[in-house]
Amino acid sequence: MMKKYITCTNQVQRWGIFEIALEGNRGGNPFTDYTIQGEFCGKNEHKTVEGFYDGDGVYKVRFMPSFEGTYTFQISGSYAQDPEYHGTFEVTPAEEGNHGPVRVANQYHFAYEDGTPYYSIGTTCYVWALQTEELQEQTLETLKNSAFNKIRFCIFPKHYDYNLNEPYSYPYEGTPVDSSVLTRDNFMAYNGCPKGNDWDYTRFRPEHFAHLEKRIQDLMELGIEADLIVMHPYDRWGFSMMSKEEDDLYWNYVIARFCAYRNVWWSLANEYDLMPQKSLEDWERYASILCEKDVYGHLRSIHNCHKMYDFTRPWITHCSIQRTDPYLSGERVTEWRERYQKPVVLDEIVYEGNIELNWGNIPGEEMNRRFWEAAVRGGYPGHGETYLSKDHLLWWSHGGVLKGSSPKRFAFLLQILKETPGPGLVQMHPSAKVHMATREDLCATVDSLLPVPYYLYYYGFRCSAFKEYYFDDEKEYEVEVLDTWDMTITKCGTFRGKFQVPLPGKQFIAVRIFEKGLL
Amino acid sequence: MMKKYITCTNQVQRWGIFEIALEGNRGGNPFTDYTIQGEFCGKNEHKTVEGFYDGDGVYKVRFMPSFEGTYTFQISGSYAQDPEYHGTFEVTPAEEGNHGPVRVANQYHFAYEDGTPYYSIGTTCYVWALQTEELQEQTLETLKNSAFNKIRFCIFPKHYDYNLNEPYSYPYEGTPVDSSVLTRDNFMAYNGCPKGNDWDYTRFRPEHFAHLEKRIQDLMELGIEADLIVMHPYDRWGFSMMSKEEDDLYWNYVIARFCAYRNVWWSLANEYDLMPQKSLEDWERYASILCEKDVYGHLRSIHNCHKMYDFTRPWITHCSIQRTDPYLSGERVTEWRERYQKPVVLDEIVYEGNIELNWGNIPGEEMNRRFWEAAVRGGYPGHGETYLSKDHLLWWSHGGVLKGSSPKRFAFLLQILKETPGPGLVQMHPSAKVHMATREDLCATVDSLLPVPYYLYYYGFRCSAFKEYYFDDEKEYEVEVLDTWDMTITKCGTFRGKFQVPLPGKQFIAVRIFEKGLL
Repeated sequence: MMKKYITCTNQVQRWGIFEIALEGNRGGNPFTDYTIQGEFCGKNEHKTVEGFYDGDGVYKVRFMPSFEGTYTFQISGSYAQDPEYHGTFEVTPAEEGNHGPVRVANQYHFAYEDGTPYYSIGTTCYVWALQTEELQEQTLETLKNSAFNKIRFCIFPKHYDYNLNEPYSYPYEGTPVDSSVLTRDNFMAYNGCPKGNDWDYTRFRPEHFAHLEKRIQDLMELGIEADLIVMHPYDRWGFSMMSKEEDDLYWNYVIARFCAYRNVWWSLANEYDLMPQKSLEDWERYASILCEKDVYGHLRSIHNCHKMYDFTRPWITHCSIQRTDPYLSGERVTEWRERYQKPVVLDEIVYEGNIELNWGNIPGEEMNRRFWEAAVRGGYPGHGETYLSKDHLLWWSHGGVLKGSSPKRFAFLLQILKETPGPGLVQMHPSAKVHMATREDLCATVDSLLPVPYYLYYYGFRCSAFKEYYFDDEKEYEVEVLDTWDMTITKCGTFRGKFQVPLPGKQFIAVRIFEKGLL
Repeated sequence: MMKKYITCTNQVQRWGIFEIALEGNRGGNPFTDYTIQGEFCGKNEHKTVEGFYDGDGVYKVRFMPSFEGTYTFQISGSYAQDPEYHGTFEVTPAEEGNHGPVRVANQYHFAYEDGTPYYSIGTTCYVWALQTEELQEQTLETLKNSAFNKIRFCIFPKHYDYNLNEPYSYPYEGTPVDSSVLTRDNFMAYNGCPKGNDWDYTRFRPEHFAHLEKRIQDLMELGIEADLIVMHPYDRWGFSMMSKEEDDLYWNYVIARFCAYRNVWWSLANEYDLMPQKSLEDWERYASILCEKDVYGHLRSIHNCHKMYDFTRPWITHCSIQRTDPYLSGERVTEWRERYQKPVVLDEIVYEGNIELNWGNIPGEEMNRRFWEAAVRGGYPGHGETYLSKDHLLWWSHGGVLKGSSPKRFAFLLQILKETPGPGLVQMHPSAKVHMATREDLCATVDSLLPVPYYLYYYGFRCSAFKEYYFDDEKEYEVEVLDTWDMTITKCGTFRGKFQVPLPGKQFIAVRIFEKGLL
């Protein structure tokens, strides 16, 4: 049989999405009974990816090319009586703002695939994409005007305190439990409970996933990474209680649909350790599916509640940490870097807010302090917000508008991070600073093998009226005092040898010192 | 030879000082060549104490009676040709404000000997008593108007950054190093260095000690415990470098002079681990002298810099801790209580101030937060202050006036502690609160074997807009919201069963809940 030649969009930018949609079988269960795959071949890569059934008799295959130039492709599978197609397309240079997927760079840090450093400033809005359209648009508008460049959110709807409403859509065919009886007092009784639900876990609702894709695309256009939480325990529908086969079908479907989006990160689960129904073998199996089927190698991690996953596992690209101590979070980055030998992303360090629960009630000052404590140790802090208000919308769950005082300060931090003369920061080891007057202070420098004369001190709650510095007798140093709360940079001039710098004697001050002309 | 009968002040209050002064030998070295001791006998105690040479041919013996009633005494020794005296005196009831020496009570807490609970709120002014008379009087006036009921200070003068001036007096006969050449930059070169000093370590200057006694007495009259630091490393005179024999002579002299003051506590050293010239055997030897010669068993501890002394040693009555972590201090009280099984006093948790050194630059809010974190875990926090100002007086070293914002808040904490319906607080173990909605919150209760329906929650930097509580279904509870910064108590009424309490949504809030009528 001759393969048919099809003409599609014949141009796509590097790290864009090339998509083929084909008619196919409607009979039986198209989600389980048939296959479709594509083979893509350019000068520098040759990849086979699985497609998916998108409903209405349409099967799709998506591909993200990582190089410029001419590609050929072939489609095959059991999805149609006459399934085989081939064709070519042209990959053009990445457009402005498209730097490719984020990768681990320099062991503890990140960069886009084009080499541009990426300094993660994350936030969490678990089910922002499953709220009303109006609220979703508002969230995007808020994100557009923020410093956030990563957002964590769920594929499944979420059943949890302060978030008992019906989601925008459901991922499966069927009917949900009647939620009219839900109250804050009884919601836990419904957790993980499939009673009252009637789902066909073998039939996805493509609209649910297509909608999430639109939101991933929206985020991409804002330059924001979509850290997708694939599984989670906050569930009144039974999605957290599916069988191995159902889980695997879900994973395959999710990967086939989402992995061509360059801004996707994979979070296997939120608080995996609150899902006793899943074993370590299960998590490792999902990971192996992901490693096999996501041919682009997007970033992968898994988020804990009380007990961190073993982040040294080879499939894990970076730590996705929830702090486990009521007081310390960012302060422990150096310890975690040493233990896990990977980038340390702090996805939950208690949220700014005023709810009664102790993971959601720190003030903006403390949130911003935790951000800086993490950042100057070469870690990547994450935000969330849980303010009670008349609209009953908590950013952490619903998105909407930000009510806290910390987010606007993150733009200042991000600016400072982007000015790092290298791929990222690392805490200077006190013993490395034997000649320095301030050897007991928290100081970051450039995380590189060769020392770079760049020092970023962060003083947190300390209110010194001055500090003394001494690096060497030769170089001339520029000194700036940064107020991380008021977001000001005060240039103090240049110094040589041992020198004193007057400070404002208040909290949340940083000092940036670098060889003259370095920045 | 007949013993002579002498008439002295023939009345002394319980825990007051009964003192006998006798003429004796002036020849040779009266500090080392002769002895004097007194034997005191009342209905309930029989004690022998050593006296001391007070200069000008006068020898003294002091005694603190612990019981009321008639006492007899006998003086003996080699101090005079005809040394033996006897007599009687009457011990009257303790006067108002005199509760006796402070003792360990209920394992982790303190009480005066008359049973009145003592909740230690300490401060540190290392050499306040060796400044000008005017400044000393000012310090006493400041203390009088403060909540402090313990002050740590040194017997020896102190040589340290921000404190390079000559002391009020010296403890030995001789001449000190010329201090006119001292600068902040070179002061460390003089540390522990006897060069340029000329002292006779066998001849005390009694005026130095008599002056300190006056200050101990002044503190006693203010109801303040004198936590005497007997040795320390900050020294340009050589007092930290004496021989074993010289050290022992010093210890014996100090004990003979000071131990009859009921408000004395013994701190063997400040930062003992910064004195490598003293071995563990030395510290244990000093302790054995103290245990033998201080017949009243005043409280005894030893203060660390980096490495805590083994506070489980039997001679140590309580921990005297310097925090060893840049972030956590009071938060670790429960751990220390469990490890050392003794009262936990936190004598240094970083000082409120604005100096460049990281042990002296936290703001008042953080100091007060640390106080509360310690106190609600049943620990006893201590203060110090290091604000730079034109007068060059730092409370931590010199005394004077307080410039910080935390001290006046301690009066509020002390009030709350004094209202504890029992001997002290203990952190409730989360597992003890299975029925409580707020089981993850930091909560203190009364430290007693039988549970007392008294709960003191402290929320630190957490800004909840409300909290939910649930103890039982039967009892009626009174609820008060405490603002530990604004020092207000807001009564919220009485509640039963599960109930919500609105909170102001700001930092530094505590909630006190107790069975109706308990307080």
